[in-house]
Amino acid sequence: MKRFLLRSFVISAALCSAVLFVRMDVSADEGMYPISEIHKLNLKKLGFKIDSKTLYNPDGISLIDAIVRVGGCTGSFVSGEGLVITNHHCAFGAVSAASSVDHDYITDGFLAKDRSQEIPARGMAIRITESYRDVSREVLSAVNDGMSPSEREKAIQEKMKEIAVAAEKANPDKQADVSEMFAGRNYVLFLYAQIKDVRLVYVPPRSIGEFGGEDDNWVWPRHTGDFSFVRAYVAPDGSPAEYSKDNVPYKPRKFLKVNPDGVNDGDFVFILGYPGRTFRHQPSGFIRYDEEVRLKYVADFFEWQIRQMEQLGKEDRAVGLKFESRIKGLANVMKNYRGKLKGLTRLHLVDLKLKEEQALQKFIEADAGRSATYGNVLSELNGVYDDMITHADRELYLSMLGSSPTLLSRASTIYRAALEREKPDSSRASAYTDKNFDRTKKNIARSFENYVEPMDRALLTELLRRASLLQGSARLPMFDSLVETPKTIAAFIQNVYSSSPLRDGAEAIALLDLPMDQLLAKQDPLIALAASLKPVFDELDETRQQRNGLINKYYPLYVDVKEQFQKADFIPDANRTLRLTFGHIKGYSPADAIYMSPQTTLTGVLQKTTGEPPYYNTPRKLIDQARAKNYGRYKNKKLNDVPVGLLYNTDTTGGNSGSPLMNARGELVGVNFDRAYEATINDYAWSDSYSRSIAVDIRYVLWVTKYVGGVDYLLKEMHVE
Amino acid sequence: MKRFLLRSFVISAALCSAVLFVRMDVSADEGMYPISEIHKLNLKKLGFKIDSKTLYNPDGISLIDAIVRVGGCTGSFVSGEGLVITNHHCAFGAVSAASSVDHDYITDGFLAKDRSQEIPARGMAIRITESYRDVSREVLSAVNDGMSPSEREKAIQEKMKEIAVAAEKANPDKQADVSEMFAGRNYVLFLYAQIKDVRLVYVPPRSIGEFGGEDDNWVWPRHTGDFSFVRAYVAPDGSPAEYSKDNVPYKPRKFLKVNPDGVNDGDFVFILGYPGRTFRHQPSGFIRYDEEVRLKYVADFFEWQIRQMEQLGKEDRAVGLKFESRIKGLANVMKNYRGKLKGLTRLHLVDLKLKEEQALQKFIEADAGRSATYGNVLSELNGVYDDMITHADRELYLSMLGSSPTLLSRASTIYRAALEREKPDSSRASAYTDKNFDRTKKNIARSFENYVEPMDRALLTELLRRASLLQGSARLPMFDSLVETPKTIAAFIQNVYSSSPLRDGAEAIALLDLPMDQLLAKQDPLIALAASLKPVFDELDETRQQRNGLINKYYPLYVDVKEQFQKADFIPDANRTLRLTFGHIKGYSPADAIYMSPQTTLTGVLQKTTGEPPYYNTPRKLIDQARAKNYGRYKNKKLNDVPVGLLYNTDTTGGNSGSPLMNARGELVGVNFDRAYEATINDYAWSDSYSRSIAVDIRYVLWVTKYVGGVDYLLKEMHVE
Repeated sequence: MKRFLLRSFVISAALCSAVLFVRMDVSADEGMYPISEIHKLNLKKLGFKIDSKTLYNPDGISLIDAIVRVGGCTGSFVSGEGLVITNHHCAFGAVSAASSVDHDYITDGFLAKDRSQEIPARGMAIRITESYRDVSREVLSAVNDGMSPSEREKAIQEKMKEIAVAAEKANPDKQADVSEMFAGRNYVLFLYAQIKDVRLVYVPPRSIGEFGGEDDNWVWPRHTGDFSFVRAYVAPDGSPAEYSKDNVPYKPRKFLKVNPDGVNDGDFVFILGYPGRTFRHQPSGFIRYDEEVRLKYVADFFEWQIRQMEQLGKEDRAVGLKFESRIKGLANVMKNYRGKLKGLTRLHLVDLKLKEEQALQKFIEADAGRSATYGNVLSELNGVYDDMITHADRELYLSMLGSSPTLLSRASTIYRAALEREKPDSSRASAYTDKNFDRTKKNIARSFENYVEPMDRALLTELLRRASLLQGSARLPMFDSLVETPKTIAAFIQNVYSSSPLRDGAEAIALLDLPMDQLLAKQDPLIALAASLKPVFDELDETRQQRNGLINKYYPLYVDVKEQFQKADFIPDANRTLRLTFGHIKGYSPADAIYMSPQTTLTGVLQKTTGEPPYYNTPRKLIDQARAKNYGRYKNKKLNDVPVGLLYNTDTTGGNSGSPLMNARGELVGVNFDRAYEATINDYAWSDSYSRSIAVDIRYVLWVTKYVGGVDYLLKEMHVE
Repeated sequence: MKRFLLRSFVISAALCSAVLFVRMDVSADEGMYPISEIHKLNLKKLGFKIDSKTLYNPDGISLIDAIVRVGGCTGSFVSGEGLVITNHHCAFGAVSAASSVDHDYITDGFLAKDRSQEIPARGMAIRITESYRDVSREVLSAVNDGMSPSEREKAIQEKMKEIAVAAEKANPDKQADVSEMFAGRNYVLFLYAQIKDVRLVYVPPRSIGEFGGEDDNWVWPRHTGDFSFVRAYVAPDGSPAEYSKDNVPYKPRKFLKVNPDGVNDGDFVFILGYPGRTFRHQPSGFIRYDEEVRLKYVADFFEWQIRQMEQLGKEDRAVGLKFESRIKGLANVMKNYRGKLKGLTRLHLVDLKLKEEQALQKFIEADAGRSATYGNVLSELNGVYDDMITHADRELYLSMLGSSPTLLSRASTIYRAALEREKPDSSRASAYTDKNFDRTKKNIARSFENYVEPMDRALLTELLRRASLLQGSARLPMFDSLVETPKTIAAFIQNVYSSSPLRDGAEAIALLDLPMDQLLAKQDPLIALAASLKPVFDELDETRQQRNGLINKYYPLYVDVKEQFQKADFIPDANRTLRLTFGHIKGYSPADAIYMSPQTTLTGVLQKTTGEPPYYNTPRKLIDQARAKNYGRYKNKKLNDVPVGLLYNTDTTGGNSGSPLMNARGELVGVNFDRAYEATINDYAWSDSYSRSIAVDIRYVLWVTKYVGGVDYLLKEMHVE
């Protein structure tokens, strides 16, 4: 969760449009409740000291008006002047973009001493959930029984888009999304207010905001000050507007009260936020595919890439800097996947699912009517995943090949352009229409920005080597002669990376305008490879559409019968829509004889400080203030220290980064940013023993802001001091 | 502690003969008390439920008669038939030596179904402490004020040897050692009974006895069944004898009662054993040398060696097997040193020592008489270590060079032989006398057994590269032309490792007999290098003798004045003589928000079992018995499980491996085998927070013996079942 997970080809390949669900009747600590479900909960019994209308009021002002989706993260308003608190890592891209050789805001942090010094936060546009409406019937009206699975899938996708476009037309200034709650069954239209002008206010130095770096990522105990403050701006008339110096701070309908007393071990807490994806009630086949095939494949390939980049980075510091955030992204996923694999093994999740499915099948077959309707649901669904497992060698390979080496990807785009632009404009794929073609050209141009040729060369070499290992039905015949021996591979690579026109921006873009006959006349080996691969990728796309169509068809039945069997209403799995989750500050035991308590301290920061940049090089000022025990009002008496990290058993996932952690009265007491290592499994299965999320304690946020940043005006703006 | 630390050149270089001490008045849990001090302790108050005579009775039978020193480890008698329990890793060498391609006792374990199947345990000779006598006056009579520091050192060493030889003459069948208790002040003659015929009885498979391998080494929580049973044999008349089938089991004067109920959190425990070395009251300079120079240097060099060996082992499995125990030895020291470095940084030990020394110096200078006697003690002592730090680059390099590459070491021996054998026999160094020269030849022959040329080549190449980096006074001029460029190094290496006669056993041994003129006439480049290095090593030896002489002179004064200042009697640091230490079963917090409880369980073994050989490949039988919860009488009710590992705050170090962990009544409840990672610092400073030792719980020992090994007769012999 630390970072919004890389939107990897492999992830999208695996997820298709499958959307999953959790049971409504489980432990109070499990569950990511859509706002539509809030009024059904017995909040008082659960531990809340506010009523459901305070939490969510469709007809008035409520806490959810203070919650924002910002980039791939969540944030919350903490003042009437549009001040938003979120994670440091959620602002990382914006801070990085605002930095230059003269202003290294990543290393030094960023501080606007007054509003005039606030600078644009690129990529941090804000959404606020305004309303929702069930559109299931409308979406499903697009399908009929005569459709093939892939026709079904396409019809649903088009209808969802159509509804959203219509909603945006009817509501200027708003954004609209149709979200799939249960594949093939439930669809909801969400309307969002939007804010386009967001500015950096205070971002602590990386050595605080990213303290512990990759070592501590996905790990408890944690000592990371993973917070930052940004501010939302709108046009003087209150409408959303791109950055302008005439813009004024946005006045939110609601902002959170910041409680500088925080919470402690055992206290009730809750979170509102935008969790990304969970897979709680997926059938055994889905889990088996991830456990047996996908997770290890991706983690290993990412690890290989990281090693290459580290090696190249060692040889050339400038290249190393270019790779830094890519390595972090890959390492983040790799560690998450390795954690998931450990957890899947530990929990024997596939075995548990299989037992559950045996019981479900028995239930189905016990009744003739049920048997007729649902008899084949489990076998059809698991059949989709069996098929993915059977073809995984080939398909995962193609996914890597299609997304990883830049030169080949340019070649594919150029070949596709020649192909598409032979068609009338209205029949072309979107990227090649006259309207969008300039953007496609710009994308090609942009692909040179972070292009590091030795890495691209290593990547394609490795992928050709792997092509030579594909066996049986996984084999790709177009590679046969090319990868016959290491020598033929080396010769191809040598040729491509010494003379390909795709290595040059102007030349590559010029090729984009060539008609097919002229393009093929060039006899470029990479273009030729891309051309030979095109039908294979087309076939793979079609296969995926078919699978998604099958899922859309059988999932609703699966959900229906499982709900009957378990006598429960399921709530949808996370899907980037606003959710409520709650629990308690609580430690855990990750292994025999080890207990982790749920609060870390400022003294722990000093203990971990080795002085090693960039992650353990705690600022002098922090060290001095901590050693002098200048804790101010942020000291916790029991710990005799400033609390830094908080651990709790709410139900979160990627996308919950930056979510406000609130006490029973809805006051801000922390900023959520990660999960414990054993909780990476959380995406598949809730575990009372292991599912733990991590926040930076509000007391540490405020202490750093005051004693290290010296940003007193923010404390005043939040009415804390 | 897991293994007796590698007797590295660097260790001996650093330790000289310095012996250190701990305060008598510290926490009850600190202290390794010599048996001579036991009667001074208030045992009842400390938690013992036995009196001092039961513990140690110079005029009768006591617990110490049940304690043995076995190899570099400790063990204890657990039956009247000579049965000894010690660690698995203490028997590792013997088990390895007894193994062949047909009988892999390391992997499978060893079990004698009856006494006739017991086989010799090579290298596991036993000593039992019989008596001691203070010989300080006699030893120190050998020195006088006119001696130079190095003369002083030599005189003491010779006198110690002389006393021991005389004692052995007067006591046939006994072994005698003079042990330095406080350098330059206290010396004690110990007499030991000895047993030469020791046999393997039951050794569990490596997957139990070494469970967790290097990952878990120096780590708590621990799940290692690090125990083994051997049996002591003597001649039918009771005298010590080499292995013979006519020998009979030794009847110990005393054996420990095995208590199958064990101990639990908070219980009092004590240990008798042979701890190796501690450095508790060393002056700041000693610690500074280790922290700033030695530990990192050695750990890094060992790491480099490990990487090389792993790489070569990957390329050739047979080579990999050869390296296995060397890698383990190096990794053990490396991890220990890295742990020590972390601990030294965390504790700021040098700073603490400096403050202590400032106060001591003030105390000295407050009195004119004291000032005259002790005024320069601290500066002289720390001066020795300052000098070692100043010359560390050169000296540590020479230590590596002198001990690491086999070919160069052969060349040095051959050159030295030619030099020494020009002298009359009585003036030669011991290894080159007519009496010992055959053994020297055998040693050369034996050096081919584990010789792996690619590793030796890599080692010498690396050392030549490092020679080229030596600067200023560290520079070794004889290398100047040899290491001028990487090319000159490569040429030298290529020449040596393609044509040197030292690569062949017969040729190398033939060279040993050549007189100097004929040897030099060979113009062998390695012999020439060895010859040019000889004076440098001689100078280094002399320097070390001088330093030791200075230490012998100033240490007694340092100890005296510190005892006056602190109004305390110090007890000597560990020095491989029998010691008592006591404490409690107790958890600890290694870091902020982490608590380790002091008992692990059989369920924890299952949790760590990944099936990965050799360390996580738990035997099927163990898994089945554990899953079936066949705990028998070894279940602890509170844990609802069989206890496996035990953690406690007694004061131990390397050499305590295999020591019996006893309850307040002196009954066996565990077998000590390691320390927690943070307790590697223990050798320098006791820490109430971090000093924790690790044993295998007697309940796990007995459970494995019964339920996995099926060795019921041992349980009967120990009167357990």
